[in-house]
Amino acid sequence: MIPYCSICWDIDKVKLLDQRKLPREEIYLEITDYHDVIEAIRTLAIRGAPAIGVAAAMGAALGALALKTEDPKEFASQFTNLCREIAAARPTAVNLFWALDRMQALAQAHASEPVAKLKERLVAEAQVLLKEDEAINRRLAQAGQGLIHDGHRVLTHCNTGALATGAYGTALGVLRAAWEAGKRFSVWVDETRPLLQGARLTTWELGKIGIPYTLIPDGAAAALMQKGLVDLAIVGADRIAANGDTANKIGTYGVAVLAHFHGIPFYVAAPLSTFDFSIPDGGHIPVEERAGEEVTHFWGQAVAPADASALNLAFDVTPHDLISGIITEGGVAQPPYASSLKALRRVKS
Amino acid sequence: MIPYCSICWDIDKVKLLDQRKLPREEIYLEITDYHDVIEAIRTLAIRGAPAIGVAAAMGAALGALALKTEDPKEFASQFTNLCREIAAARPTAVNLFWALDRMQALAQAHASEPVAKLKERLVAEAQVLLKEDEAINRRLAQAGQGLIHDGHRVLTHCNTGALATGAYGTALGVLRAAWEAGKRFSVWVDETRPLLQGARLTTWELGKIGIPYTLIPDGAAAALMQKGLVDLAIVGADRIAANGDTANKIGTYGVAVLAHFHGIPFYVAAPLSTFDFSIPDGGHIPVEERAGEEVTHFWGQAVAPADASALNLAFDVTPHDLISGIITEGGVAQPPYASSLKALRRVKS
Repeated sequence: MIPYCSICWDIDKVKLLDQRKLPREEIYLEITDYHDVIEAIRTLAIRGAPAIGVAAAMGAALGALALKTEDPKEFASQFTNLCREIAAARPTAVNLFWALDRMQALAQAHASEPVAKLKERLVAEAQVLLKEDEAINRRLAQAGQGLIHDGHRVLTHCNTGALATGAYGTALGVLRAAWEAGKRFSVWVDETRPLLQGARLTTWELGKIGIPYTLIPDGAAAALMQKGLVDLAIVGADRIAANGDTANKIGTYGVAVLAHFHGIPFYVAAPLSTFDFSIPDGGHIPVEERAGEEVTHFWGQAVAPADASALNLAFDVTPHDLISGIITEGGVAQPPYASSLKALRRVKS
Repeated sequence: MIPYCSICWDIDKVKLLDQRKLPREEIYLEITDYHDVIEAIRTLAIRGAPAIGVAAAMGAALGALALKTEDPKEFASQFTNLCREIAAARPTAVNLFWALDRMQALAQAHASEPVAKLKERLVAEAQVLLKEDEAINRRLAQAGQGLIHDGHRVLTHCNTGALATGAYGTALGVLRAAWEAGKRFSVWVDETRPLLQGARLTTWELGKIGIPYTLIPDGAAAALMQKGLVDLAIVGADRIAANGDTANKIGTYGVAVLAHFHGIPFYVAAPLSTFDFSIPDGGHIPVEERAGEEVTHFWGQAVAPADASALNLAFDVTPHDLISGIITEGGVAQPPYASSLKALRRVKS
C-alpha cells in the first residue's frame, strides 16, 4: 500500500531511499561500506530518530561483515571502534546510541562464539530491529489514534512518517492509523525550514496515504491558531528526557508555546527507544548545530549576501509542561510525567 | 552613505530597485507606464508599506502624464480611474490608499487649473511624498532609538529598511539611528518565509550599515528567546487599526506571542500613514492571500510534490495587547492605545 521504504537490508547491503532528493527523485542508495552509512546519516539522506537508529544498526552490521579478523577479542575491539565512529554521525537523536548499544550488547553476549557466527547474529539483529520498529510504530499509532477525531485540523512539524522510521511512522503514524480507522480530517503541514522536511517529505507521504493536507510556511501556524483553524498539534521527537522535556526539529518549541497560548492540545509521539532516562531534563540534551549554509543557501543557490552569517540549530527543546501527552507503544503518557514516564520506563527495560 | 534607493523620480520616469533580484543582482527598473508600477507592486519588485505608498503616488503621476485629454473634467475622471487601478494592486498596506487619496485630493483641489499645470503639480507631489517619507522615517527612528541599548540582541522579522520605505526605514530605521548614535548591538534576522525578505533584504541592508546580524530560520526565534538571547523584538506594519491592532508580514503575530510568553518587549515601528483610523480593530483589515506557488516553489524549483496545495497568507494581525509600544514620527505610543493613538491621530490630520 505504501510503495516505498526508508531503509532495508538486502542480502549483503543496505538500501535506503535518498531523502535529500525527495520529492523530485525517488532514488535508492545501495551501501556496502559502513562509512557511507555514516555519511548518509550525517547528510540527512536518512533522518528521523527511529530511522537513524535502524540505519546505525545496519551500518554496524555492514562494518562487522567487513572486519577481517577471526579472533573474537580483536573482533570485539574493532567492532566497538566502528560503533563509536557511527555514534559520532549526529549528536541529538538518542535512537542512534540506543541501537548501537543494543548491537554491542549482542556482540558482548556472544563474544566467545566464532566471528562468522557473530557476524550472522549482528546482521540478523539489525533486521530484527527494523521489524520491531515497524511493530512498535503500529502499536504507538493505535495508542494515539483515538486522539484524532472527524473534522480535526491537525498541525504537524517536520516529518515523522515511514520515512523517519523503519516503517509506518510516529506522529504521522498516529494520523495514518486514524485515517485507516475511517476518520476523516485534514493536516496543516509546517514546511519546516531550513531543510523543508515538511514541504518535501510530509506532503509526499500524506499524499501517498491519501490524507488531505495544506502546506504552510512555519510562520503561518500562529495565524491559523488565532483563527481557530487548528484543533490539535502533533510532532515527533529526537530525544525525550526522564521528565518529559522533548528535543525535536527546530521550530517545535515555538509550535508548543503557540498551542499553549491558544489552548490547543500539543502531543508528542515517539517510541520508547527515543527516551533517554539517563538525563533528568532537557537541559542535558546536546543540540546539534549544523552548517549555516543550510540557511543561507537553498539547493545550491545563495539566498543571502555572500558574507551573511547564520545560526542553524537543528533542534530545540520543548519543556514537558507544554506537552499534553506523549504517545508511545506503551500507551499515552499524561502529566505528571514524573510518574507516568516512570511506569513506561519499566516497559522499556 | 547608503548607495541605493528603493524608488525615485527621474525627469519623466520612475526608477526602482528590483527587490525580487536582491541580493544577487542590483538592477533598477525604469518605468514610464503606470501599468508597470502596478505590476512592480503586485510582484513585489517594490514592497514595504511606505515604499508602496510612494510607488503608488509616482504611478499615479506617470498615469497623469500619459493622459491625452486637455479637458479638466475628463482629466479628473480618467485620473480617478487610474488611481482605482493602482489601488487594486495589493489590499493590505493602507499606505497605498493613503498616497492615492492624497494625489486625488490634490487633483480635486486644483481641478479648475489647466491640465498641463495639474500634471506638474501631481509629479511634484509624488516627489514631495518621497521626501516627506524620508523625513518622517528619520523622526520616527529618533523617537524609537532610545529603546535600543548597548549589548542588545534585537530580533526583527521581514524587511523594514530603506528598501521598504522611501528612504531610511521604519523598524530598521530605529536600529540605524541607534547605531548612528554610537550604540553597539546585534540583530537576529528572521529569514521570513516564503519570500525571504529577511534573508535577502534585511541582511543586505544591515550589512551596508555595518550592524552585525545573524540570520535564522523563522522557527528558531522561539529557541533563542527560551535561551535568553533576545532582548527586544521590533517589526514594521502594513496597517494599524484605531485600537493598535497591527497587520504585518506573516509570522509577526507568532513573534509577538513568543515575545509575550518570554517577557520580551515587542515594538512596532510605522509612520502615521500606516494607521487606518477608519477601522476600529484588526478584524477589519483585509489580509492578502497570495499564490500557493510562492510556498511550493523556490526560485522556480518545486520544493513540494506537484499536486501539493499550500496556503499563502501574506500577513497576520497582532492584537494590540501584545504590543509594548508603537513607534511613530509623533513619538512612541504606549498602552492604553485607545488614548495614545487618539492623540497621534490629531498629529496625522
